[in-house]
Amino acid sequence: MATKPYKGFSPDWYTDTAPEKSYRSVFKWGDPAAYKVPKENLYKLVKEIFGLSDDNFKQRKELGLEPVEYDIPVTLDDKHLKALEKIVGAKNIATDNYSRLTVAYGQTMYDLMRLRKKIVENVPNAVLYPETREQITDIVAYCNENIIPLYVYGGGSSVTRGTECMKGGISLDMRKNFNKVIEFNQKNQTITVQAGMMGPALEKILNEAPETLKGATERYSCGHFPQSFEYSSVGGWVVTRGAGQNSTYYGKIEDIVLSQEYATPIGYIKTDNTPRKATGPDVGHIMMGSEGTFGVLTHVTLRIFKYQPENRYRYSYMFKSWDDAMNACREVMQGEFGMPSVFRVSDQEETQLMMRMYGITDSPLDTLLKMKGFKDNEKCLLLGFTDGEKKFGKNIAKNIRKVCKKYGAMSLTGIVTKSWEHGRFTDPYLRDNLQDFGIMIDTLECSVNWDNMEQVHLDVRKFCKSRPNTIVTTHISHMYPQGGNLYFIFITPLEDLHEFKEYHSGILDAIQKSGAAISHHHGVGKLFAPWLEGYLGRTQYSIFKALKKHFDPNGIMNPGGTLGLDLEEKDKKFLREYK
Amino acid sequence: MATKPYKGFSPDWYTDTAPEKSYRSVFKWGDPAAYKVPKENLYKLVKEIFGLSDDNFKQRKELGLEPVEYDIPVTLDDKHLKALEKIVGAKNIATDNYSRLTVAYGQTMYDLMRLRKKIVENVPNAVLYPETREQITDIVAYCNENIIPLYVYGGGSSVTRGTECMKGGISLDMRKNFNKVIEFNQKNQTITVQAGMMGPALEKILNEAPETLKGATERYSCGHFPQSFEYSSVGGWVVTRGAGQNSTYYGKIEDIVLSQEYATPIGYIKTDNTPRKATGPDVGHIMMGSEGTFGVLTHVTLRIFKYQPENRYRYSYMFKSWDDAMNACREVMQGEFGMPSVFRVSDQEETQLMMRMYGITDSPLDTLLKMKGFKDNEKCLLLGFTDGEKKFGKNIAKNIRKVCKKYGAMSLTGIVTKSWEHGRFTDPYLRDNLQDFGIMIDTLECSVNWDNMEQVHLDVRKFCKSRPNTIVTTHISHMYPQGGNLYFIFITPLEDLHEFKEYHSGILDAIQKSGAAISHHHGVGKLFAPWLEGYLGRTQYSIFKALKKHFDPNGIMNPGGTLGLDLEEKDKKFLREYK
Repeated sequence: MATKPYKGFSPDWYTDTAPEKSYRSVFKWGDPAAYKVPKENLYKLVKEIFGLSDDNFKQRKELGLEPVEYDIPVTLDDKHLKALEKIVGAKNIATDNYSRLTVAYGQTMYDLMRLRKKIVENVPNAVLYPETREQITDIVAYCNENIIPLYVYGGGSSVTRGTECMKGGISLDMRKNFNKVIEFNQKNQTITVQAGMMGPALEKILNEAPETLKGATERYSCGHFPQSFEYSSVGGWVVTRGAGQNSTYYGKIEDIVLSQEYATPIGYIKTDNTPRKATGPDVGHIMMGSEGTFGVLTHVTLRIFKYQPENRYRYSYMFKSWDDAMNACREVMQGEFGMPSVFRVSDQEETQLMMRMYGITDSPLDTLLKMKGFKDNEKCLLLGFTDGEKKFGKNIAKNIRKVCKKYGAMSLTGIVTKSWEHGRFTDPYLRDNLQDFGIMIDTLECSVNWDNMEQVHLDVRKFCKSRPNTIVTTHISHMYPQGGNLYFIFITPLEDLHEFKEYHSGILDAIQKSGAAISHHHGVGKLFAPWLEGYLGRTQYSIFKALKKHFDPNGIMNPGGTLGLDLEEKDKKFLREYK
Repeated sequence: MATKPYKGFSPDWYTDTAPEKSYRSVFKWGDPAAYKVPKENLYKLVKEIFGLSDDNFKQRKELGLEPVEYDIPVTLDDKHLKALEKIVGAKNIATDNYSRLTVAYGQTMYDLMRLRKKIVENVPNAVLYPETREQITDIVAYCNENIIPLYVYGGGSSVTRGTECMKGGISLDMRKNFNKVIEFNQKNQTITVQAGMMGPALEKILNEAPETLKGATERYSCGHFPQSFEYSSVGGWVVTRGAGQNSTYYGKIEDIVLSQEYATPIGYIKTDNTPRKATGPDVGHIMMGSEGTFGVLTHVTLRIFKYQPENRYRYSYMFKSWDDAMNACREVMQGEFGMPSVFRVSDQEETQLMMRMYGITDSPLDTLLKMKGFKDNEKCLLLGFTDGEKKFGKNIAKNIRKVCKKYGAMSLTGIVTKSWEHGRFTDPYLRDNLQDFGIMIDTLECSVNWDNMEQVHLDVRKFCKSRPNTIVTTHISHMYPQGGNLYFIFITPLEDLHEFKEYHSGILDAIQKSGAAISHHHGVGKLFAPWLEGYLGRTQYSIFKALKKHFDPNGIMNPGGTLGLDLEEKDKKFLREYK
């Protein structure tokens, strides 16, 4: 994606397609040929905040253009490779270095930094591309019998080291052959898909249902649009308990999933697909969030929704303070007039950054805002839109206006929302271009109740800002009557791996100490796992260990720290033990 | 509750207060002094359908007016009784026969029949009335150490033999001392209560919040109104996964619960209270539905809602056929214009019965309906109302009208809904008065997807109707975009316990064979437990056994068949094993 030519000095942004089989082709976001160059005003801002000059942008660093090369031998016994090949067929197994690396890493900055530095760790011995459920159940049974670690790779956008093959073993890449629609049911308004189905493929099929799905007479939507939408799979959404940006209306993935099927070491299970029941503990909620440690998710039945983007009401409001903005959001969430779809509010620093990025700073609108008493570094931006039936949405938009006005907000109309929508899935591309010059962008998020929102925001920012020259922006998204998700983005010149880990870990410490849940939708994986037992408390956490022992007595499913299930005591953090 | 004097013969309905400490005082519904006598048109209908005459209503049977007397000795060692007494204090333990019986039975017809026949089985050795969480954790620890079966009694409206003390042991009666508000949080819009809090007490506190709760400036509602509302406890709602009649708007109890606290044999746990998270399996959903087999629920934090009954839009529609009615309901549920609160549709037989009960049969309205082509035994009645903000509700009501018109329905205005609301909590009283003359009323319900709704209705009715002289009425309530709850009420002259059990069991067989989930909100308890493993499939069911072993290695929590966890293989039903 090109940007307008800079008036001043323009860094030599990398805009070529990542070379085939290069490190860059593995770590870069999304489409190998796509990129997103910062606009000039963002570039200026970055220099200004970090005290950098054009000189700092004359030399690109660690682009990872070299072909993947590393020396981690395949140690899995040949008889096992043969047996696995027999299950999936010769064309569906790979043991070359490049294939092995493509399924081992995700999209946390820790992954990107390692790959830029050509540090390759924890790759599988082989990658399998299963085609059928039967192949997957056979693989699980074989691995269980022969104690071979088993990993699963979906879209690859994990920011928790979720897919990393800590113990070698093998990995199932679900994208290639296990991505089809199994059943569409218009009467129940559901679709059943294989776990490797990618977001855009699913949404396209649903949008075009009358042409693509047997028996469909209407157009549908999946309702789940995480920022990683274009490079995430249905299976990944489910096992990590993901959330889409429209979740305030559609719900998190656990609200959208109707039933799931898993191949586990103890056998195949399919959870009930009725909308609600009273038949003991809910197995669906035991499997969602298991992150590959209990079994391999094969099929998911999802609730689907009418596709009616023409009904959308967009809005945006500027508040004079973070406090006003939070109070208004809470009042909207508790208003019982229906839920907006996208509903997010940026804190002071994020608002300031957005004003710059959207070119509002120093515009007539900026002048008007200042005249009306909306101060720099104090004002906060709320934006979003509705989904659902037209008048339902209109009534929500009206009520939002009423509440925002009560808290002194000024409407900026739907135009700001449109700007945001425009970049919502492409912003991750920016990361690569900035990191080419040593500036990293990463995020952490947590779930918070309204009565603790201000404190968590203060505490976590305080730690983040303890690092000099760091931009820390925050928004509340995915809101509920009882609270919401506080999402922190930190941008800073940082190239040292150890330094990154210390900083990242410090933020997680701050989140945990502040009393928030350590993840709202990113999941836990291997990166956040040391904090999990302290967060749940030892007795509650012991339930996970009991389930793990039951499903996977040989410890072959996603081993090496996932959910902390095989972590040693000394590697766990107990900063605040919950009761 | 008196009724208008009959014009013809009036049976000698029992309208006195149940004698103190009598069997009747144990089994009768609700308030010992309350009753509900059938209106004359219902009495006539009953005679007509069952082929009975006034003569059959001249002799009352098995009224259970005698004082409770039975010979089941207290076998629990005196040292244990002393130790337990030390924990709760002398005033909070009872070992007399009457107290023991009051906590052992629920409200399934099987319970009522046994008590009318003075068949007393499965009472505890002692009843404890704990006052604090600490007492409960001490009791659980003591029982676990000394392997004493531990039961819990809440409101007593179980229809699954959920509270029955199959192995003796002791029972905790939570109603007396463990029913207080622990914390109200207006910012988060939550209330935390002890598990023994009863429905009406909670609703009153919330409705009058500004007067009853510190820091409250608005009025609230709990949003959960099961038919058993007046005689059910918050704890019972949660552990069985109950549903209120307004659940289409407010959700089932699992949608209303934010967090829970349990005293279990392995320790105390408190689940996270943020609205959503991605921190592994959801422990809240493991505990909800555990029906006292994993631990004792002590505290619940509930989401609460604005109390604004003045916003309610009532509606009712008559459809020409069951098919039209089902299609309209599905379309409303999938319409994405917001959810009505009460939304229920009666099948042909239930509609016919309601017409008689509400005095519509042979009225001018009836004539009009006939003129317009609404035929007896074909037409179906939909009724309900909205909750939430005013215009939100108005838009829903408008959309419902539109859909109903599309399917040829005629509006009967909100008056029919008002009649239904009037009797919604008092109908259970009718059961006692009719059973005094040998006519039993019981219910079973199941969760069904839209594409299977017609078949389940047909299959289950077919079995129910295989018994001659039986009224079987059905409604769909608690609807969702993907399906709903099919609720069957069967009324028949039946006095033999064995005969009842055979019939009840046959209906459960039919439900299971038809492919429905065996319970939408009644839970499983001990009565439906034989069907549970067949319904879930052996592998999936093994998860429950693993959890049980983890929480309760000594098998002291609600033992004797609950959820089938300690049932022998031969006592289980595998009519249709789900995969």
